[in-house]
Amino acid sequence: MENKGRTEISTLGEFGLIKHLTEQFELKNESSIKGVGDDAAILDYKDKQVLVTTDLLLEGVHFDLTYCPLMHLGYKSAIVNFSDIYAMNGQPKQITVSLGISKRFCIEDLEELYAGIRLACKQYGVDMVGGDTSASLTGLAISITCIGEGEKGKVVCRNTAKNTDLFCVSGDLGAAYMGLLLLEREKNIFKGDENAQPDFAGKEYIIERQLKPEARKDIIELLAKNNIVPTAMMDVSDGLSSELLHICKQSGLGCRVYEDRIPIDYQTAVMAEEFNMNLTTAALNGGEDYELLFTVPLSANDIVQNIPGIKVIGHTTDESLGCRLITRQGDEIELKAQGWNSLK
Amino acid sequence: MENKGRTEISTLGEFGLIKHLTEQFELKNESSIKGVGDDAAILDYKDKQVLVTTDLLLEGVHFDLTYCPLMHLGYKSAIVNFSDIYAMNGQPKQITVSLGISKRFCIEDLEELYAGIRLACKQYGVDMVGGDTSASLTGLAISITCIGEGEKGKVVCRNTAKNTDLFCVSGDLGAAYMGLLLLEREKNIFKGDENAQPDFAGKEYIIERQLKPEARKDIIELLAKNNIVPTAMMDVSDGLSSELLHICKQSGLGCRVYEDRIPIDYQTAVMAEEFNMNLTTAALNGGEDYELLFTVPLSANDIVQNIPGIKVIGHTTDESLGCRLITRQGDEIELKAQGWNSLK
Repeated sequence: MENKGRTEISTLGEFGLIKHLTEQFELKNESSIKGVGDDAAILDYKDKQVLVTTDLLLEGVHFDLTYCPLMHLGYKSAIVNFSDIYAMNGQPKQITVSLGISKRFCIEDLEELYAGIRLACKQYGVDMVGGDTSASLTGLAISITCIGEGEKGKVVCRNTAKNTDLFCVSGDLGAAYMGLLLLEREKNIFKGDENAQPDFAGKEYIIERQLKPEARKDIIELLAKNNIVPTAMMDVSDGLSSELLHICKQSGLGCRVYEDRIPIDYQTAVMAEEFNMNLTTAALNGGEDYELLFTVPLSANDIVQNIPGIKVIGHTTDESLGCRLITRQGDEIELKAQGWNSLK
Repeated sequence: MENKGRTEISTLGEFGLIKHLTEQFELKNESSIKGVGDDAAILDYKDKQVLVTTDLLLEGVHFDLTYCPLMHLGYKSAIVNFSDIYAMNGQPKQITVSLGISKRFCIEDLEELYAGIRLACKQYGVDMVGGDTSASLTGLAISITCIGEGEKGKVVCRNTAKNTDLFCVSGDLGAAYMGLLLLEREKNIFKGDENAQPDFAGKEYIIERQLKPEARKDIIELLAKNNIVPTAMMDVSDGLSSELLHICKQSGLGCRVYEDRIPIDYQTAVMAEEFNMNLTTAALNGGEDYELLFTVPLSANDIVQNIPGIKVIGHTTDESLGCRLITRQGDEIELKAQGWNSLK
C-alpha cells in the first residue's frame, strides 16, 4: 500500500465503489451480453460449452501483502482462474470479482488491485461482468469466478488419459516456489526496517513467477494449431507430483516420469542450491507454476517434441504398476502428493 | 456448532474434504455436463442465455453464528443467489461453493453447512458443480456463484421499466429485518448464559424470514403461467426503498409508491411496535426480504391484481417527478436508499 493519497471507502459506499472500480472495464466478447449492474450477468454461448471455475483467496493464507503488491495480486488472482479454463482446453471469456475489504484499505488500494485485474483481462481478452463488494472484519478476501467457452468434443478433462499416453508439461517447474521462499526469507531478514530494499538481482525470473505468473494461452493455441487435442489435461497449481496423481487416479492408470526430463530453469536450480534443497523435490512439490500438464497418444510424439515450450516427461502405464519417478540413477520412487495444502 | 462428535479437518485434507462434502450431490440438470472434480465445470446451455451471479458472505459481517445455525446458513447462502437468478426471470441451474474455514470448524460443522446447501439445491432443482475449500485465518468465508438459464427475449433487467408502468412486489416486507433485530436482542440478553433458551412463540414467521428465507421461484412461474414478462425486475435484498431507486435510476424514471399498499405481515407490525419503530421505515429499509420487485405495463393491471402473493404498490413516472412515497395522510416523501450497507 503505497503513499499516494488515502480516500476512505465510506466516502463512496458500496454501489459507488463498485461503479468507480468497474466503469473502466468494457465488454468486448460476443458472448458478454450484459455485465456489471444487474442481479446477474447475461451471457450467450450459442453452440459452445460453458466452463466455470472459481477461487477464493484469503489474506494470510493465499497471499501476503508485505511483499505482494496489490496490482500483482489482482493480476495473479485473475490469471489463476484463466489457467483453470485453459486446462480444460477452453478460452476464458468472463470473470466476476467479489471482494471483502477490511478498514485498513482505502480506495487507492482497491484501484491498484483492480488495475491488476484489468491488465490481466486485457492481456487475455476476458470481460469483467459482475461481482460484489462488502466489508470484511479481518483481512482482504478475493473471490473470482471465471467463465469460459469450449468447443463441443474438444473440452479436455482429467479422467480421460489412456494407457501408454505420453505425459507432457509446458514451461518449467519449481520457480514460483523458489520465488516464494526467497520473498519469505527477505521478509524475515528485513523485518522492522521499513526502508530496507532486498537485492533480487539475478533472481528476477523466480520472483516474477511467484508474483506475476502467466496462464498458458499460448500453449493451448499451439496445440490447436498442431491439431492436437490432449487426452487429459490440468494445470500445475499444487505441484507436479500431486497433479500427476490426479490424472492417473482419475483415469485409472499408473505412470513413469523421468527425473532428468523435468524442465527446471537455471535460477530455480541456483536458488535450490542456496537453500540447500533437493531440486527435484522443489520441482515436484513446489506448486503455483500454472503450467499445463497433459497427455497425448504415443503417436503424437514427433509433433509435441517439435513444439517449443513443451517437454515430454514420461508416460502412463497400467494402474497396477503405480505412479513412479525414475531417478537419474535409474531408481524408482513412488510419487506422493506433498504439494501445498492450506488445510494441513 | 452442536456437540455431536468433532473430527478435525486435517484428517481428510483438502481433496478428501471436498470429496466427502460433495459426493452426496448428484447432477440432475440437462445443462450440467460435468460437476465437481476437474479444473472447471462443463455446462451446456444450447439456445438459452446464461445468467451468472455471485455472493461473498463473511462471518461477523453477513452472518453471526451465535444465532444462525450452520444448516440455515448453508440454505440461505444458496437461496440468496437463486433469488438473483429469478430476479432476471431465469431459472437457477448450477452453483459453485468456495469456503474459507478457520480452525474452530470441524468436519461435522461443514457437514451441517453442506446439508443446508444440499437441501436448497434439492428444493430448487439446482446442481452443485464445483468449488474450492481452503483455510481461513479468521472466520468463515462462503463464496457462492450461481449459474442459471434464461430464455432469449425474456430475460429481465433493471433498466427497462417504462413510464406509467405499475410497480409490483411479491410477499411482504420488513419481516427478515425484524427477525434480525429480535435475534440480536435475545443474543444480548442471554450473553454469558449458554443454557438460556429465548422464547420465540408468536414470532416464528419473522425468525424464519431471517434464518431460512426462500427465493420466489413460485412467483416467476405464476408470471409465466399468466403470460407476463415484467418490463424490469430485481430482488429486494437491500430494502424496498433502495431497490425502487435502482430500477428508477437505471430506467431514467421517477415513481410514486403508496404507503398503505406496502405489504406487511402482522408479526412484523407487532415487532416494530415492540421496538418502538416506524413500521413503514422498517419495510422500506429493512432488507433481506428476497421478494421480487418488478414493473408491468398498466394494461396488465387486471392480471397482476388477481395473482395471489403479488401486490401493486405504485407506478413509475417521468424522471423529473422524482421518486416519492405517498403517506397515508397524502404527504409526499422523497425515497432514500437507507438500506443495509456493510461499507458504511
